[in-house]
Amino acid sequence: VLETGIKIFPPPEALALTHNKIVMREKLAEIDIPQPRWTVVSKDGLDENAVSTVGGFPCVAKSPVGGYDGKGVRVIGGFDEIQDWLSVGEVLLEEKVDFVRELAQLGARRPSGQWSAWPVVETRQVGGVCSEVLAPAPEVTDAVRKRAEEIAEKIAREIRVVGVLAVELFETKEGGVIVNELAMRPHNSGHVFTELSVTSQFEQHLRAVLDIPLGATELRAETGVMVNVFGGVDHHLVKIAAEEFPAAKIHSYQKSPRAGRKAGHIVLTGANPEALIEEGLAVRSVLDRADYDR
Amino acid sequence: VLETGIKIFPPPEALALTHNKIVMREKLAEIDIPQPRWTVVSKDGLDENAVSTVGGFPCVAKSPVGGYDGKGVRVIGGFDEIQDWLSVGEVLLEEKVDFVRELAQLGARRPSGQWSAWPVVETRQVGGVCSEVLAPAPEVTDAVRKRAEEIAEKIAREIRVVGVLAVELFETKEGGVIVNELAMRPHNSGHVFTELSVTSQFEQHLRAVLDIPLGATELRAETGVMVNVFGGVDHHLVKIAAEEFPAAKIHSYQKSPRAGRKAGHIVLTGANPEALIEEGLAVRSVLDRADYDR
Repeated sequence: VLETGIKIFPPPEALALTHNKIVMREKLAEIDIPQPRWTVVSKDGLDENAVSTVGGFPCVAKSPVGGYDGKGVRVIGGFDEIQDWLSVGEVLLEEKVDFVRELAQLGARRPSGQWSAWPVVETRQVGGVCSEVLAPAPEVTDAVRKRAEEIAEKIAREIRVVGVLAVELFETKEGGVIVNELAMRPHNSGHVFTELSVTSQFEQHLRAVLDIPLGATELRAETGVMVNVFGGVDHHLVKIAAEEFPAAKIHSYQKSPRAGRKAGHIVLTGANPEALIEEGLAVRSVLDRADYDR
Repeated sequence: VLETGIKIFPPPEALALTHNKIVMREKLAEIDIPQPRWTVVSKDGLDENAVSTVGGFPCVAKSPVGGYDGKGVRVIGGFDEIQDWLSVGEVLLEEKVDFVRELAQLGARRPSGQWSAWPVVETRQVGGVCSEVLAPAPEVTDAVRKRAEEIAEKIAREIRVVGVLAVELFETKEGGVIVNELAMRPHNSGHVFTELSVTSQFEQHLRAVLDIPLGATELRAETGVMVNVFGGVDHHLVKIAAEEFPAAKIHSYQKSPRAGRKAGHIVLTGANPEALIEEGLAVRSVLDRADYDR
């Protein structure tokens, strides 16, 4: 609550964690959340030995502020690869986790503390950017599903998140989960719930921020997939895709086209996640047709 | 297509039918669509014998233009009950159909002719106004389901509807269906499809008018119900209802309150239509609480 009496959700103290990755690592360590080994280096404090705390090179270097969609993240084999960042300030080093796959756990929290989660999803990345989402994560164990939700709930509670929280996770070979990144807002990995769940992440975010009781997160279908569309969404190609795939929900963000930009996404729901992914990729390949005569 | 080159959908010739109920009856007769027996009377042409063509009194009198939500419709026992309408112009008389229940068949048609229908729904009226919708219509026979869709498709094709068409039907004791009313727009009886179907009636209407291939009309759940909310929707009561019924989707039209006005609706999806209706009525009874201290 500001002096003006205006409430801001999520609270600025909570949001600060997603604005600086070093602050986030410190806070997650403080509340005992499993995460990759990490350390902080600066121009004046370069220590090859410090790197051993993150398992040595190669490791992951992160610019603490302003990263997005893989930007500000590098896998490095030496400090010479981050001279540009070090000239500006501190750099976060993280263990290069040998994960099985990436997951995301989404949920929402009201100011009063009410928490509600969706089932954990699998996210598939290409070049550090989320390309596809499968919901729920196929063949996830009960232990992983339960642990993912516990972690997200604990973070939301300890940090007093209000609104949607997305926790990006690595699933390890040992069947554990550790936290990669956090986002305190409706998130790319949650778009699938617009069609798949009784309550979408956008509705839930508004309910949470307005302190309205949270909506049910049951799924309306067995499974769903989300496939990102990059570059741009051409409406002539949307018509062609809609002809061939009447069950596909094609969302366009109406952004001006730019290579690699998330310009829209496709959602399909049904019974078989791999079949749905195949169909989603087929829809995207229609939207990606470069040879279409406009 | 106007002289200015602007296309208008649905075409004005099609819309004319929903603007004048006598024109509609004439057109439906011309294209051989089953409907109640009907006749037209005017101040200067009152003929008690003519009433026998609609089965005698009591019959249904309709003001040809401007009816809505049961307004402009009266069950009459004599001409003296419609003197006010007769002083203005012609009045449509219809047989008082002894129906089993009311149904509605919705579908959409593109300018190119593509047609897509949702499953026929049951509509329950209170005082001539739709109160609840069950989708699909419970225990409907294959013959009725098929006939309802055939009728709607034929009307759409013959009249060259573009966009959503809603056909209100009476289901007769003999297992037939006859047309009560038409609407060429997203309709109250189709709100349930926003949550229940892969494609909502609003999305389908836009696809049709913009000549985009129509979306799939498969259902995401076994069944769904829609319960209208009358008068007004108070947001404090919405919060109370949301607490008790997290799976209910409560839509408010943000209209100023007025007795009897359709102010919003509730949708629930699941497996058992009667259980869902019971839950929907319980949600409405929370929203209707007059004793709540605002």
